[in-house]
Amino acid sequence: MKDRLYIYDTTLRDGQQTQGVQFSTDEKIRIAQALDELGVDYIEGGWPGANPTDSAFFDARPDTQARFTAFGMTKRAGRSADNDDVLAAVLNAGTPAVCLVGKTHDFHVTAALGIGLDENVESIRASVAHVVAQGREALFDAEHFFDGYKANPDYALDCLRAAHDAGARWIVLCDTNGGTLPAEIGRITAAVIAAGIPGARLGIHCHNDTENAVAGSLAAIDAGARQIQGTLNGLGERCGNANLTTLLPNLLLKHPYASRYDTGITQEALTGLTRISRMLDEILNRVPMRQAPYVGASAFAHKAGLHASAILKDPSTYEHIDPAQVGNARIIPMSNQAGQSNLRRRLAEAGIEVPANSPALARILEVVKERESQGYTYDSAQASFELLARGELGQLPDFFEVKRYKVTVERRKNKYNQMVSLSEAVVVVKVDGEKKLSVSESLDEDGSDRGPVNALARALSKDLGRYSDMIADMRLVDFKVRITQGGTDAVTRVIIDSEDAAGRRWSTVGVSPNIVDASFDALLDAITWKLVHEGTVVSAA
Amino acid sequence: MKDRLYIYDTTLRDGQQTQGVQFSTDEKIRIAQALDELGVDYIEGGWPGANPTDSAFFDARPDTQARFTAFGMTKRAGRSADNDDVLAAVLNAGTPAVCLVGKTHDFHVTAALGIGLDENVESIRASVAHVVAQGREALFDAEHFFDGYKANPDYALDCLRAAHDAGARWIVLCDTNGGTLPAEIGRITAAVIAAGIPGARLGIHCHNDTENAVAGSLAAIDAGARQIQGTLNGLGERCGNANLTTLLPNLLLKHPYASRYDTGITQEALTGLTRISRMLDEILNRVPMRQAPYVGASAFAHKAGLHASAILKDPSTYEHIDPAQVGNARIIPMSNQAGQSNLRRRLAEAGIEVPANSPALARILEVVKERESQGYTYDSAQASFELLARGELGQLPDFFEVKRYKVTVERRKNKYNQMVSLSEAVVVVKVDGEKKLSVSESLDEDGSDRGPVNALARALSKDLGRYSDMIADMRLVDFKVRITQGGTDAVTRVIIDSEDAAGRRWSTVGVSPNIVDASFDALLDAITWKLVHEGTVVSAA
Repeated sequence: MKDRLYIYDTTLRDGQQTQGVQFSTDEKIRIAQALDELGVDYIEGGWPGANPTDSAFFDARPDTQARFTAFGMTKRAGRSADNDDVLAAVLNAGTPAVCLVGKTHDFHVTAALGIGLDENVESIRASVAHVVAQGREALFDAEHFFDGYKANPDYALDCLRAAHDAGARWIVLCDTNGGTLPAEIGRITAAVIAAGIPGARLGIHCHNDTENAVAGSLAAIDAGARQIQGTLNGLGERCGNANLTTLLPNLLLKHPYASRYDTGITQEALTGLTRISRMLDEILNRVPMRQAPYVGASAFAHKAGLHASAILKDPSTYEHIDPAQVGNARIIPMSNQAGQSNLRRRLAEAGIEVPANSPALARILEVVKERESQGYTYDSAQASFELLARGELGQLPDFFEVKRYKVTVERRKNKYNQMVSLSEAVVVVKVDGEKKLSVSESLDEDGSDRGPVNALARALSKDLGRYSDMIADMRLVDFKVRITQGGTDAVTRVIIDSEDAAGRRWSTVGVSPNIVDASFDALLDAITWKLVHEGTVVSAA
Repeated sequence: MKDRLYIYDTTLRDGQQTQGVQFSTDEKIRIAQALDELGVDYIEGGWPGANPTDSAFFDARPDTQARFTAFGMTKRAGRSADNDDVLAAVLNAGTPAVCLVGKTHDFHVTAALGIGLDENVESIRASVAHVVAQGREALFDAEHFFDGYKANPDYALDCLRAAHDAGARWIVLCDTNGGTLPAEIGRITAAVIAAGIPGARLGIHCHNDTENAVAGSLAAIDAGARQIQGTLNGLGERCGNANLTTLLPNLLLKHPYASRYDTGITQEALTGLTRISRMLDEILNRVPMRQAPYVGASAFAHKAGLHASAILKDPSTYEHIDPAQVGNARIIPMSNQAGQSNLRRRLAEAGIEVPANSPALARILEVVKERESQGYTYDSAQASFELLARGELGQLPDFFEVKRYKVTVERRKNKYNQMVSLSEAVVVVKVDGEKKLSVSESLDEDGSDRGPVNALARALSKDLGRYSDMIADMRLVDFKVRITQGGTDAVTRVIIDSEDAAGRRWSTVGVSPNIVDASFDALLDAITWKLVHEGTVVSAA
């Protein structure tokens, strides 16, 4: 009989404390959906009331199997839990679970809060009881617990007992400053259990300031804790939180955790891990960390000659797990043999079956390699990759031809003597033998300038003859720009995400020293992909 | 009486297995000198004979306090140690210490080497004895030791004993695949000591495939090992080696290691750690990892409002060590209450002194906050921040005024029926009461299109009257684009890095829904900053 471990994700709350990170509501929804697919038990969505975008997200939050959790803090001293507007805002988000952070380190109670030690214990008790009385699941985040325990174990334990006795489902031991090493986390967690708080109600929340957040979480589990808090890709303030992207495969694939514990995450869901990790980086417009354990592009790359040749005899010689278990892939430099099977897998994902011995495979690899040396990337732009492959396989119709385009971008004073910007785009296409000239400007319904790429996108899709209806439900949802190396020069790489009414979402890429050109090519691919897939639907009907 | 821990650096050997990393001899010399300043005990320089640049480096290696070590492998079966040319090349490097890797996992002996188990033990014995006979210090890297011990403990121990009895100073337990978790590393290291190999002769070599390389190294020390192998910034094959940049401060600053062990590294040398870490990234032309423990730019950045205000009362509330101990610095974002003292520090860095009670401080913070809500960021765009502050303080001259600009971007067929792109920019400025109209196109010397922003930059700087000379040595060196949230809409944020002949480098930011507009504003700031600082030089003369 395996014990159950509960996974608590705080990417959307503590993860957002990362310098430079601020998720939009739409991005939070996408991340929550990905976490739910993965199968985490809890999704902490933010601090409603403290942050307007957090409040907006709770109103718009998707339906999930995972238990949605609102974060807040214990009531302030000098008022009742009923009368604390900060606490009320947290409860008003209407989530099934509520996690409240409170002090457990005596120094912080007196120095930071400036209140009495007993008053703080009472705040914890009353706040947790208030959450429970509202029929919600209550969690208590014991801030600075490990430092607090070292300074004053009796007081730190009193704080935990107050939360426990008031009915908190989980008491979460937080190493807020990230300074506690794994052995000490294990020892103190065991001491808490020995003091009467059952491990089945203990969670662990580690930070990576000593590069031990994963190890500290494992040490707490070894000692008896049964909930693990962390974030995707280890996002979080300073050096980040415990990295779930590493912890989950450690728990599901490695001895002794795999045989000792169950989580809500299946082996099948785990194969989506690399994709989810990359998606998050994509949302953050970050270059994924190549060296990231399990999901990094280099995690299964074998550079040393001795290693690479042994790997060919038997992959287990230099790999601690099969990369497919986390949706990643082995890289053996300059090994076409390994490259072709990977290529066939990606083509199959796009619905294109190619026999293993097809000469087209080598040709496609050649083109991909050539394009990548120009600055293209097909890791995330799966739709452009599919079009490239279809082109090589003779499976790409010529829907229309772009003869030319022209965009102007102007900034000048208007008649009210205000500086205004305006773009205007003209696109000339040939569809079914007919030349069509379309023009569009960059002003949206409110009269605000949306820039040259927007004007160009609108002009391009304005009149494509019989294809116009097919692309009418397309919407550009994201636009990412990166300067990268193309050959010897810096070029601009644009990745566009599009969506349609059927809920499909696809990414396309364009590369050029000219940002408008790069955008235009990515737009063209986006429309072409849509037409290919509309065609499939039509011919299947 | 403290125990001595020995630090063994393998940045130049195992670190060079990182995908995309190949050090030149000069770079190796710089890194070796930095390691020696830091005070490591051993510097592993490479595999002489296996790699021509490694051989060249051993010939050119600097004099160091640290013991220089050549890496190689145990002699091949079927020849004597005297007659193995691979081993001879290693010894010929003439280093005081020699580290030889050998198999200890029975499966690898039979599957990868294809020799008998006893033959392998004899290779280890004879090779180590040969190194010792030459008067060198011998180290034995026990490859795949932990996997080998789990598969066949008796055989794995036999291999270690062969090296030990032949006189190896160090037997290094290597977790070559990186798959062993810390608790198991601790348990097996203790078992090795119980089997008769003294801890004082055991080293540990971990990889980060489960994000536990640091924790695994600590677990081995706890069990009794006394040499730690690792690399700067955790370089290394796949997910990297144990990160010395984290391990060293853990050992020198954290309980219980600081009070239990001595290393060759002083507290003073440790304050150079951040600088050395950044120097390595600079050699590798990598963006330093912001979240890196101890040395990352974000490692002591306090974003959460509650944390930032507590930090001002007492830094120990949210910091596990003083950042100065590793040569790093605290960052408190300006956009909150904690910001004013931080703001004054940033202004002082830009050469602007403002009294602590100046009402301008609150005004500047207000503008920064407002701008940040529009999508601006001043974390990295220090030059734009400086201009904003100078503007509020009345210290920003009106050098020139942009009246209007217009850019066209065109793609069409040329007379050879090839698709070509071309941009053309017209900028109208007023300098010293005089209107100047400049035009530029986007083709570079080779006739290649460099895009609309390039055309605009050239037109803008073409004629600025008496300022033209001052900006003649400016060069745009980097251009970063991000789509971000500005209020409720997505906007484009452009950050431009510029450089001049004096070696100054500065970053400016522009934000707009229109990417050309955003770029133009960042360009304007870049030129204005240059003029401000040219002015300073002139008036100081």
